[in-house]
Amino acid sequence: MQPKSNIVHLPVYQPGKPVDDVKRELGLEEVIKLASNENPFGYSEQAKAAIINELGQISTYPDGASFELTAAVAQKFGVEPNQIIFGTGSSDIILMLARTYLAPGDETVMADETFSQYKHNAEIENARIIEVPLKNGKHDLSAMLAKITDRTKLVWVCNPNNPTGTIVKEDELTTFLDQVPKDVLVVLDEAYCEFVNEPGFPDGIKLLKKYRNLIVLRTFSKIYGLASLRIGYGIGHADVIQYMNQVREPFNTNRLAQVAAKASLADDEFVAFCREQNRAGIEYLYSHFDRLGLSYFPAFGNFVMVDTKLPSAEVFQALLRRGLIVRPRWTYYPTHIRVSVGTPEQNEKFIAALEQVLQEAAVRG
Amino acid sequence: MQPKSNIVHLPVYQPGKPVDDVKRELGLEEVIKLASNENPFGYSEQAKAAIINELGQISTYPDGASFELTAAVAQKFGVEPNQIIFGTGSSDIILMLARTYLAPGDETVMADETFSQYKHNAEIENARIIEVPLKNGKHDLSAMLAKITDRTKLVWVCNPNNPTGTIVKEDELTTFLDQVPKDVLVVLDEAYCEFVNEPGFPDGIKLLKKYRNLIVLRTFSKIYGLASLRIGYGIGHADVIQYMNQVREPFNTNRLAQVAAKASLADDEFVAFCREQNRAGIEYLYSHFDRLGLSYFPAFGNFVMVDTKLPSAEVFQALLRRGLIVRPRWTYYPTHIRVSVGTPEQNEKFIAALEQVLQEAAVRG
Repeated sequence: MQPKSNIVHLPVYQPGKPVDDVKRELGLEEVIKLASNENPFGYSEQAKAAIINELGQISTYPDGASFELTAAVAQKFGVEPNQIIFGTGSSDIILMLARTYLAPGDETVMADETFSQYKHNAEIENARIIEVPLKNGKHDLSAMLAKITDRTKLVWVCNPNNPTGTIVKEDELTTFLDQVPKDVLVVLDEAYCEFVNEPGFPDGIKLLKKYRNLIVLRTFSKIYGLASLRIGYGIGHADVIQYMNQVREPFNTNRLAQVAAKASLADDEFVAFCREQNRAGIEYLYSHFDRLGLSYFPAFGNFVMVDTKLPSAEVFQALLRRGLIVRPRWTYYPTHIRVSVGTPEQNEKFIAALEQVLQEAAVRG
Repeated sequence: MQPKSNIVHLPVYQPGKPVDDVKRELGLEEVIKLASNENPFGYSEQAKAAIINELGQISTYPDGASFELTAAVAQKFGVEPNQIIFGTGSSDIILMLARTYLAPGDETVMADETFSQYKHNAEIENARIIEVPLKNGKHDLSAMLAKITDRTKLVWVCNPNNPTGTIVKEDELTTFLDQVPKDVLVVLDEAYCEFVNEPGFPDGIKLLKKYRNLIVLRTFSKIYGLASLRIGYGIGHADVIQYMNQVREPFNTNRLAQVAAKASLADDEFVAFCREQNRAGIEYLYSHFDRLGLSYFPAFGNFVMVDTKLPSAEVFQALLRRGLIVRPRWTYYPTHIRVSVGTPEQNEKFIAALEQVLQEAAVRG
């Protein structure tokens, strides 16, 4: 039972350490997880009501085509239903893109580093992965463009980028898109776009009209706070979506996720509240990082990548002992940690703990 | 943006027609769906309580490794946690098996016809699909064995078989397994096994000790009634499960499915009730098929494949107009329909409607 040769040595995804594990291992009562860019303000009450209202239908298969949710997304964004596809989180859309477009030996271009699932899925398909280092934490679009060949099938742009939190502006993106060959599909992952209120930040969905080789990924896991229900979506051109539907698992999204997502989409108030709270949280973190003399990448998602000037694995462990989980160990940024923006109280506790960790390290010298 | 050549012409899965569609299209108030082998008795009240109890955790990613549910399954079946993997329904386990083991040109052997997702996933991987016709609606294991070559990676056995409902007995299965080369993985899909109370029906999990090249698939979508939550599992050998984990999406199962599945697993009373009701429903259907002079395959799942002696698409439409959805159009069985076992009331309405349809056809001659 030998698996495909290219998957033998693949790593298993390492998620943010679960709160319960940390409590168990360290005997802590309170643990704050700022490691997975979750929404600390929960989710829409309307989504909760929709879930409860659906509990009588658990035994019936979900609508595989997500008819009602598709209609809601189509109306909200002014696109046609046949331009939309849903997945078990946007990770599942990434999987479908890889399965649809990447044959062994095909090339795919992505930033290094960026969301790990682009590379992981390309590896499973035995594609040739071309990674282009970030430049000051940002996608280096001209370097990526230079790497496109006639074997290139997919190019990935994560905006804001996970883990650095940086963005490419609309003029940079369109300059890039204007030059990408028309038979290369550009995947614009906008998982964190609803947190951004920066002038010049592009709206990928509006760009679809001009670029037929663009697909936009979004998710209900981040600002909508439905991470545990697993639902994300792609909006692209009907022919691309049709091919992806041919590889989609028949019932990939669950019934409760569908109704919760539909209700969440209508709750603009909750989204606006989370966006404001998140921005205030970032400003709070910035001010303390400045005070502590720490540099950071400009943050446009719900997380900040900050340079602790210490080995990140050590900082991670020291914070963990204080009941705070962050994300360390980034290939190009050995002294950075990625910290999700929490509630005001969580942010304060994080800063207090970080300050202690830095002070102890200074004492140890 | 040309997709992989082998997926260009793939069909999109055609699910059982949704109840709401039929109500809308035909202006019917009551529609009974006996097309997707769902549990007409719902699901465990304990699972419902577990879901409600978890609604405060929606914003937090699920445990990707399903730690607690894995422990519960391991204990119930006497296997090790590292022998278990969960998926977005057992369809997702099928996807992972295909992605892990099938490279382009590899061969995979399956019955014809059987659950469509084995073939679908193998097609996506560009594997060579060897289909072996059923014999009297049953897997023809000796013919399947004869089709195994040194290119064969996966062999699929669905027991009970969907759509025919037939089973292979333990002696037939072990005779087969004894002869399958040890480097060929046999996938034993037991989605409907909890409905079977027939002497000699094999328990795949017990066979794992003897056969290192066996993996067993099970689901919470059928007797447990959690179809809309999307959760199924595979039990195999640790090395196989490890490889599959390397291709598993990090958060493939959702939080509510995990807690509902764990609670359902403990509710033996509900399972026993459903098994008894299902058996009584099958006996009821048998008795009326006999009265109407219709033959059928011996049914061991929660559905019966019955020969209406009329083109099944016509029977389907005639039943639909009476508010009953069944599953027609089987390649080798053009006059059979597959009908799920419903509640006693649903079964009565189905028989009454079927009898009318047959009488009208007899009148038309």
